[in-house]
Amino acid sequence: MSFTKAASDEKAIATIRCLAADVVAKSNSGHPGAPMGMAPLAHLLWSRYMTANPKHSKWINRDRFVLSNGHACTLLYIMNHLMGYKDMPMEQLKQFRQLDSKTPGHPEANHTEAVEVTTGPLGQGFANSVGLAIAQANLAATFNKDGFPLFTNYTYMFTGDGCLQEGISSEAASLAGHLKLGNLIAFYDDNHISIDGDTACSFTEDVEQRFLAYDWHVLHVLDGDKDIEGIYKAIEEARKVTDKPSLIRIKTTIGFGSKQQGLAATHGAPLKADDIEAVKEKFGMDPKEKFVVPEDVYEAYRQVGERGAKADAEWTEMFKAYGEKYPKEHAEVARRIAGKLPEGWQKALPTYSPSDPAVASRKLSETVLGKLAEAIPELVGGSADLTGSNLTRWGNAVDFQHPSTQLGDYSGRYIRYGVREHAMGAIMNGLHAYGMHIPTAGTFLNFVSYAIGAVRLSALSQFRAIWVATHDSIGLGEDGPTHQPVETAIALRAIPNLMFWRPADGNETSAAYLVAIESASTPSVLALSRQNLPQLEGSSIEKAAKGGYVLTETQSADITLVATGSEVAICNEAVAKLAEKGIKARLVSMPCFEVFDAQPLEYRLSVLPSGKPILSVEAYSPLGWSKYAHVSHGMDNTFGKSAPAPELFKAFKMTGPDVAAKAEHVVKAFKGKELTSPIELAKLMEVA
Amino acid sequence: MSFTKAASDEKAIATIRCLAADVVAKSNSGHPGAPMGMAPLAHLLWSRYMTANPKHSKWINRDRFVLSNGHACTLLYIMNHLMGYKDMPMEQLKQFRQLDSKTPGHPEANHTEAVEVTTGPLGQGFANSVGLAIAQANLAATFNKDGFPLFTNYTYMFTGDGCLQEGISSEAASLAGHLKLGNLIAFYDDNHISIDGDTACSFTEDVEQRFLAYDWHVLHVLDGDKDIEGIYKAIEEARKVTDKPSLIRIKTTIGFGSKQQGLAATHGAPLKADDIEAVKEKFGMDPKEKFVVPEDVYEAYRQVGERGAKADAEWTEMFKAYGEKYPKEHAEVARRIAGKLPEGWQKALPTYSPSDPAVASRKLSETVLGKLAEAIPELVGGSADLTGSNLTRWGNAVDFQHPSTQLGDYSGRYIRYGVREHAMGAIMNGLHAYGMHIPTAGTFLNFVSYAIGAVRLSALSQFRAIWVATHDSIGLGEDGPTHQPVETAIALRAIPNLMFWRPADGNETSAAYLVAIESASTPSVLALSRQNLPQLEGSSIEKAAKGGYVLTETQSADITLVATGSEVAICNEAVAKLAEKGIKARLVSMPCFEVFDAQPLEYRLSVLPSGKPILSVEAYSPLGWSKYAHVSHGMDNTFGKSAPAPELFKAFKMTGPDVAAKAEHVVKAFKGKELTSPIELAKLMEVA
Repeated sequence: MSFTKAASDEKAIATIRCLAADVVAKSNSGHPGAPMGMAPLAHLLWSRYMTANPKHSKWINRDRFVLSNGHACTLLYIMNHLMGYKDMPMEQLKQFRQLDSKTPGHPEANHTEAVEVTTGPLGQGFANSVGLAIAQANLAATFNKDGFPLFTNYTYMFTGDGCLQEGISSEAASLAGHLKLGNLIAFYDDNHISIDGDTACSFTEDVEQRFLAYDWHVLHVLDGDKDIEGIYKAIEEARKVTDKPSLIRIKTTIGFGSKQQGLAATHGAPLKADDIEAVKEKFGMDPKEKFVVPEDVYEAYRQVGERGAKADAEWTEMFKAYGEKYPKEHAEVARRIAGKLPEGWQKALPTYSPSDPAVASRKLSETVLGKLAEAIPELVGGSADLTGSNLTRWGNAVDFQHPSTQLGDYSGRYIRYGVREHAMGAIMNGLHAYGMHIPTAGTFLNFVSYAIGAVRLSALSQFRAIWVATHDSIGLGEDGPTHQPVETAIALRAIPNLMFWRPADGNETSAAYLVAIESASTPSVLALSRQNLPQLEGSSIEKAAKGGYVLTETQSADITLVATGSEVAICNEAVAKLAEKGIKARLVSMPCFEVFDAQPLEYRLSVLPSGKPILSVEAYSPLGWSKYAHVSHGMDNTFGKSAPAPELFKAFKMTGPDVAAKAEHVVKAFKGKELTSPIELAKLMEVA
Repeated sequence: MSFTKAASDEKAIATIRCLAADVVAKSNSGHPGAPMGMAPLAHLLWSRYMTANPKHSKWINRDRFVLSNGHACTLLYIMNHLMGYKDMPMEQLKQFRQLDSKTPGHPEANHTEAVEVTTGPLGQGFANSVGLAIAQANLAATFNKDGFPLFTNYTYMFTGDGCLQEGISSEAASLAGHLKLGNLIAFYDDNHISIDGDTACSFTEDVEQRFLAYDWHVLHVLDGDKDIEGIYKAIEEARKVTDKPSLIRIKTTIGFGSKQQGLAATHGAPLKADDIEAVKEKFGMDPKEKFVVPEDVYEAYRQVGERGAKADAEWTEMFKAYGEKYPKEHAEVARRIAGKLPEGWQKALPTYSPSDPAVASRKLSETVLGKLAEAIPELVGGSADLTGSNLTRWGNAVDFQHPSTQLGDYSGRYIRYGVREHAMGAIMNGLHAYGMHIPTAGTFLNFVSYAIGAVRLSALSQFRAIWVATHDSIGLGEDGPTHQPVETAIALRAIPNLMFWRPADGNETSAAYLVAIESASTPSVLALSRQNLPQLEGSSIEKAAKGGYVLTETQSADITLVATGSEVAICNEAVAKLAEKGIKARLVSMPCFEVFDAQPLEYRLSVLPSGKPILSVEAYSPLGWSKYAHVSHGMDNTFGKSAPAPELFKAFKMTGPDVAAKAEHVVKAFKGKELTSPIELAKLMEVA
C-alpha cells in the first residue's frame, strides 16, 4: 500500500499537540513535551494501522498499544478520547491527575479502559510488550488454522530514552530478538532530552547498533516532527519483516511548536499560557480556545473506530465458523477469553499424609506444575536460567522458541528467559495482560528482588503472575549470604495485593497453588525449599488455604509457636522437646500472611488467642512478625553464611532444641503475665 | 613488549585447573567448570600484569580484580592462594563453602582478604568494576602531578554469559562507554554454557556488536583454552586504548580437560572422582594426589608477589617525595587512605529552630550536600537522571565526564548516571570499594527498589553508600501510585546493616547525614519529601541521632503517637486537636528504626513506655510497626493515587484531624486496659 495523505492529517496532529498542552496546563502538573513531539507518530499509527474497537475494548484480537514512556500518558488519553472510548470523555482530560479520575499521572491497567499495562516506571512497558507479543505468537501457533487466522494482532510500543537506559529493556530486547517476535514494533522517540538535560550527558551509545546486536530489524525516520509519510513507510517495512521485532527510531523535537521546543524545560512541567497560545496560533488553532477537537478530526477517528468495529465483527463471524469446524478448540478459546478456569482443575492438586516421604517443596511444586500444566492449558512456565534448580519444567513441556531454532516452537509453553529476572517479571505481566494466559516462572527467592519493580506492578495492575521462588532461606546452604534471602519475604509481604506463600509441606504447597491460581487479580510468590520437608500431621489443603491455622492444638498451652515453611517441622520437633519438660505448646502454621489477614477476626483470634505468649519462628529477618507474636525468633542482623544447610540451621539456632530452649525462656520470662494477642488488639479497635 | 612463554606456564595452568576440581570435589558443592575454563586467562593476567602486593593487600594503587561471575570463586581463591595472601593458605581451599571459612560460596568483600567486592548475584561485579574505574580516574585527575603518577592502576574484570544477560551490566556498560574509562578491561568468558544448557536457548545476541554500540574497544581471542599468547596480545592492545573501556571476548571450554568438558554438567556440580583423575593425568599431574601445587609454580607466583611488593615500595617512595612538593595534597591523600574524615566536618551541618520556614526535606538535603561537598572532598554526588528533582547537585559541582566532551572532567565529583538505578547502586559500591570516596546518589525512593540487589550488597559488604531518596510518599502527589513507595521503607528496614532514615525536619535531616557519614561500614537510604515540612519544636541533631526520641512529652498522657518524616508534623497537629478534647498525647519522632534499636533498652523504654496505647502513624504499609506500637495507622492495601498531595493526605486520612480521630478511637478502645509496650516485652525477655 502506498501512502495517501488525508485532508485531516495536519489538523489532527495539531489537535493532539494543542490538547496535550491544554491538559497539562489545566492540571498544572505533567509532561507536555513528549506527547507534543510524538503526536505525528501517534496520529499516523492510529489513523492508518491501529485495529481496535472502541465499543468493545476487550476484543481479543485488537492491536495492543504500550506506552513504555508512561509519563507521556496525556498522549494515550488523548488518543483514547479521539477513539471514543466511553471511559475517556473530554471531561476526563480536564481531570488529568486529579483524585479518582480515569486519567492518573501514569497509565494504570485495570483502572482506565484501553490501557493495556501499567507504565511509568521506566522500561516496564518495553518488557510488557514482549510478553504481549509472546502471548499473541503462542495463541496463533496454538489455535490459528488454515482460513482461520484468529490471532493476528500487532503489539505497538512507544519508548523513550529513559526506558532504553534501564537494564530491564536490554534484557527484554535481547530476549525478543532471540525469540524473533516479528509481531512487535517498537518506536523509539529519539528526542535527545531527559530530565538532566541533553542525553549527551549520559546516554551516547549507538541505539541502532545495539538493537542490531540483539537481532532486531532496525529502521529510522529522521524527521519525526513532520515526515508522516516516512513514518508510514517505516511501519510498512517493519510489518514486512516477520521473523524479527522492529525498532523504528524516530527523531523528534520535544515540545514541538513551543518556544522552548527541544529543551528539557518542556519535559516535565506545563508550558506557560502565552507559549500555549503561540503554539495554537502556529498550528492554525484558535489561541483563545482550550480543549478543542475540530469536528473533522473527530470524524476521522470515528472512521478509525468503525474500521476496528468492522474487524471485530468479521472476527466474531470467523470465530463462529471456526467453532463449527473446530468445536474443541473453539470451546477452549471461548473459555479462556471468558477468564474461566477448566472445570475441576483443582482435582489435579496432590494431597499428602504424614507417612509420605519428606520432599523439598521445590520438588513438590514440580509435581504440582506437572499436573497443572496438563489440567490448565493456559498455564505458561519458565525460569531465569535456573530450570534444573527451580524444577519449573514439566516432563513433556515444549519450549517457546522460534521454530527455525529447532529448540521448540511458538506453541510451546515453557519460556527460557535467560538470566533476566526483571524482564521475566514484566513479561509475565504482558502475558497476563493479553488476557489468555496464566504465567508462572522461577528463580531463587533472593533474586525476585532483582525484579521487584515488575512484581509491584503485577500487584498494582491486578495481574496474576506466579513466581516459583525456590532456595527460600539459609536452607540453600553453600551458596551463602549473597544468595540467602533474609529480607525478601518481608519486602513482598509489604506489597499490597500480593500473596507471599511459604508452604511447609505437600498439602500446603498444593494450597498455595490453589489460592494463587484462583486469585485472578492477585500475583503470588511461592517461596519453596531446596531441602526436604516432612509431610506434617494435621496439614490439609483446606486448612492451609486459610493462610494460617492451628497445626497442633494443645489444651491449656503455655505458649503458642507460629512458623512458616521449613521452620514448621522444626517447631514440631520443639513442641515434642517442650512436652518432655512439661511445657505445653500449640503450633500454628502460617503459610500466607495476606490470606490469613483476610479471614474473619474470630477465626484469627482462635488461631492466635490472648493469654499466653506467642513466639514466631522464621529463618528471616523478624521484621513484621510482631503483628502476630510477642517474641520473634529469626535471623537478626545477618545475611546468613556459606555452609551446608544443616550446619547453618544449627549456627543460626534454627533447630528443634534451639527453638525449644527459646520457647522455654519465653515461658519463663512471661510467667504469670496475661498477654494480649496482637489480634485481640485489632478486635478491641473494631468493637470500640 | 612481546610475549615470552615461561617454562612454568603450562604447569601453572594445569595446577589451577586441577586445584579447582579438587576444591569443589572436597566441598562436594560449587562450580568447577568456569574456573577450569578460565585458568589460562587467570594465569596469564596474574603472571604478566596484575600488580598487587600480597603482604599489603590494601596498597592503594594495586590493580583491582573483580570476578563478576562470582560462582567461579574457586578460581579467585586459588589465585589468592598462589599469590600468598595470609588469608588463603591451602587449608582454606580445603574449607571451601564450610562454616566460617575464608572461602564462602561466593566472594565476600570485608570477609576475605584481596576480595575487592562481593559478587555472585549476577551483573553486580560488572557494575562494581565501573565504580572502581571511576574512582581511579577521579583520583588520577585530582592528585596525579607531573612526575608523580600516584593513581595508575587498572581494573580487570571477568564476566560470564549470566552477567551479560542481566540488565545491570547493560546499564553499567553503556555508562562506562560514555565515560570512556580506558582503565577498565573486561574479559568475557564466552563458554556458551549457562545453567539451562547451551546459551543458544536464550542468549543469541551479538555481544561484540553490543559493546561496540556502547563505544567500547572490543577484541577477541578464539582459543582461550590454549592460546595464552593471544590473550597476552589482546591485553596489550586493550592497554593501548586509553579512551575506551575494553572487552576481550575469550572463547573457552567450560570444564576444560574433563570428560564432560563443554557441557552444563560441569557448571554447578563437582566432577566425578574418576574424571578428576583423568583430568590430572591429561595435564601431567599425579592422578592420585590432591591439592598439589608444584614448587616451580609457587616460585613463579612468588615472583609475581615480589613484583607487586617492589611496585608498592616504589610507590611509597614516590608518595613521600610527592609530600615534599605537594604537602597539602599529600596530607589529603594520606587522610583519605587512612579512612579519616576531615577534622570538624560536622560543623558544616546546619541547624534549625521552629521559627525557620517550612522547607521540603529534599531541599534541606540539598543545603546539607552543598556544605558537605565543601567540607568532605571525598564526597561524590550523582543522580539517576533526576538531578533537578532530587536536588543532589551542589552549586559549583563539576560533572565527572571525559574532558573531550567539554561537559566536565575526570576531577568532577558529580556523576550523571542516566536512568540506571541498579548500576548506580553497584557503581556506588565500587566507588566505596576503591577506598577513598564516599558515594551519594539520588533517585525517587520508589526507584531504589530497582536497585535493591545492589543495596543489599552494600549492606552485606559493609560499604557506605548513601541514597538520596526523594519524593518519599504520597507527598509526591500527581505522579501517582506507580511512583508512590508504600512498601519500599519496610523492604529497606528488613535489610541487615542498612539504615533507613526518614527525617521530619531540618535538624533531623542533618542528623541523618551525620550518622550516615559517620557509619563507615553501613549504607543508608535517606527518604526525603517533595513537599515542605515545618521546623519542629523539640527536634535537634543530637536527639534525632538516637534514631527515635520524645518530641513532645506530656505528663499522664492517654496515648503515645509515634511517626516519621512528614507525618510527624501531622501528628503535632493531632496532639493539639486532642488537647482541645481533653486527651493528652505524647509524640515520638522515629527517623531511623535501626539506630533507635541500637540504643540501650532503658532509653528505648523511656521513649515507648508501657501503660497507655501507642499509635504509629506513617503513610506507608504499616507492616513492621507493631514492634513499637499497639495500633498502626498507615496505608492499608493501597499503592496510593494520582492527585495533588494535599488531597491525597486527606484521601488516605493522613491529616491532623484524621489522626486525632484515630487516636481518640484508640484511647476509647483501650480505656482502662494496661498495655505492655513492645519494648517492655523485649526487656522481660532480656531479664528472664
